[in-house]
Amino acid sequence: MSLSEAELIARFFRDCGAQRHDVALGIGDDAALLECPPGMQLVATTDTLVAGVHFPAATPPTAIGHRALAVNLSDLAAMGAHPAWALLALTLPEAEESWLAEFAAGFGALARAHGVALAGGDTTRGPLTITVQLLGHVPQGRALTRAGGRPGDLLFVSGSPGDAAAGLAIEQGRLAAPPAAAAYLRERFLLPTPRVALGERLREYARACIDVSDGLLGDAGKLAAASGVGVEISFAALPVSVQLTATLGEHAARTLALTGGDDYELLFALEPGRAAELERELPRGEWNYQRIGALCTTRGARVCHDGTVMEFSHSGYQHFS
Amino acid sequence: MSLSEAELIARFFRDCGAQRHDVALGIGDDAALLECPPGMQLVATTDTLVAGVHFPAATPPTAIGHRALAVNLSDLAAMGAHPAWALLALTLPEAEESWLAEFAAGFGALARAHGVALAGGDTTRGPLTITVQLLGHVPQGRALTRAGGRPGDLLFVSGSPGDAAAGLAIEQGRLAAPPAAAAYLRERFLLPTPRVALGERLREYARACIDVSDGLLGDAGKLAAASGVGVEISFAALPVSVQLTATLGEHAARTLALTGGDDYELLFALEPGRAAELERELPRGEWNYQRIGALCTTRGARVCHDGTVMEFSHSGYQHFS
Repeated sequence: MSLSEAELIARFFRDCGAQRHDVALGIGDDAALLECPPGMQLVATTDTLVAGVHFPAATPPTAIGHRALAVNLSDLAAMGAHPAWALLALTLPEAEESWLAEFAAGFGALARAHGVALAGGDTTRGPLTITVQLLGHVPQGRALTRAGGRPGDLLFVSGSPGDAAAGLAIEQGRLAAPPAAAAYLRERFLLPTPRVALGERLREYARACIDVSDGLLGDAGKLAAASGVGVEISFAALPVSVQLTATLGEHAARTLALTGGDDYELLFALEPGRAAELERELPRGEWNYQRIGALCTTRGARVCHDGTVMEFSHSGYQHFS
Repeated sequence: MSLSEAELIARFFRDCGAQRHDVALGIGDDAALLECPPGMQLVATTDTLVAGVHFPAATPPTAIGHRALAVNLSDLAAMGAHPAWALLALTLPEAEESWLAEFAAGFGALARAHGVALAGGDTTRGPLTITVQLLGHVPQGRALTRAGGRPGDLLFVSGSPGDAAAGLAIEQGRLAAPPAAAAYLRERFLLPTPRVALGERLREYARACIDVSDGLLGDAGKLAAASGVGVEISFAALPVSVQLTATLGEHAARTLALTGGDDYELLFALEPGRAAELERELPRGEWNYQRIGALCTTRGARVCHDGTVMEFSHSGYQHFS
């Protein structure tokens, strides 16, 4: 096949994302022109997915497209930001049309669901690597960061961490699970749900927030360190899905919830006096979050169970170590 | 060696770019927070460099760092935009400290020269691939695009196209050159000079602009097509460096100026009545540009020489064909 870069972009990406009035000039020139609304700060993030590192080589292209945007949406969610515009840098061994169509379908569906325009990008030849840059905005001075937590703050996590790590292990043939559980867990890995709406609502409540991508325990440690405090997590309070428990048993499920990666959930700290208000305004059954611990003065991240502190061999994913 | 992602970022990238007051929150959280000045449009671009595709594997890391930012600066220059903030997505086979130090030195020096802050990024393990996202701004409604040219407009190019393509051929051992010329041409490939100041000044003069990255003839065709016109280039008017001429002879030098890539020069169209003003305000000796042709009503891109139209086997670089 022979598809020029211009044809490839026109065919698969020109109308891939949402249509937005604040894109003054989108795909097709040397750069995109975007209208940043007055009174807002710009929020910018980038994340790369490398085939064989961040997803198995055989992952369906739809899931790769979804995931490439989802991991960036999760970063913006952690800042309490509203996503608006994406740039897509796609490096491909070859311009295979069915692959591109599926990739664009996965990327585009999630982009449209969040009102994100695909405003530009670059396609190059090389080993399969996808880098998305996501831009959004947040009212001036209102962004959530990792740094605002204080001792005594309550710690919450959304969703059911650990599912995605189990799903990846199933994808890779390293873990067996009952069929229904396997389908659920694989989808939790392949099609993560970024908590964008929760992040935006948390601007009113949370004092600090981080997205859980490299393992809950490690990411809790990062939030605590950035806030200049420590963190204590209650092992028994960790929310785990029935599917994960059915697959691993309760203890191993909670352990994976702490140390697995790829969750793309939000971990946030709340002033204790505001817990009732949070639960009234954002009912837990609807918003799907759980209290799992608290910030404290003693530095470091600890997990407590039946009155003792548990030890873990690793607390998150490290790319270079 | 064992360097965590956090250590790698702290050691090599935290203070790599310029310091800017409009970076409310830089490297270290889930996303960067940036202040877009009122009355300005945001300009966003991204370009990827893949080892072995966009530069030979043995390219010095300093040059790779320079080049990764330079190609993006050139995109912003073509829009007449002022660069402000970069995000760096760096995929590396291993975190080799001397490589990282040299890469950061090359990237950082160019970033500081243009007042660009490195506001965020992502480091991952995989085949060497560098994606930079560059953000800048331009006064509302004043951006240069490819689309504003009209028949009769004069066409200009900056610098001396063709040098970089020859420099690459020398790097790859495909071309021999006299030693002084070889050193100059290699540097023109390794350390391209994005024409940012020229682009910003051209907002007052040019009707259309594009950066020459995939070959002058092909890029002239893109500008003409976006403007809904054709373009005619005078072969004899093409500016070529004495080093390129000394290496290839005059005819082959001009041919490479038309069809080589990696120039990162600006190609722009000017209303004929404004040529005198341009040359008075931006003296050619200082700003280094040359008139090479004109836009016309007959669609397509043509090169004329001694009253005849020349034929070329290809008119630019295509990643997928």
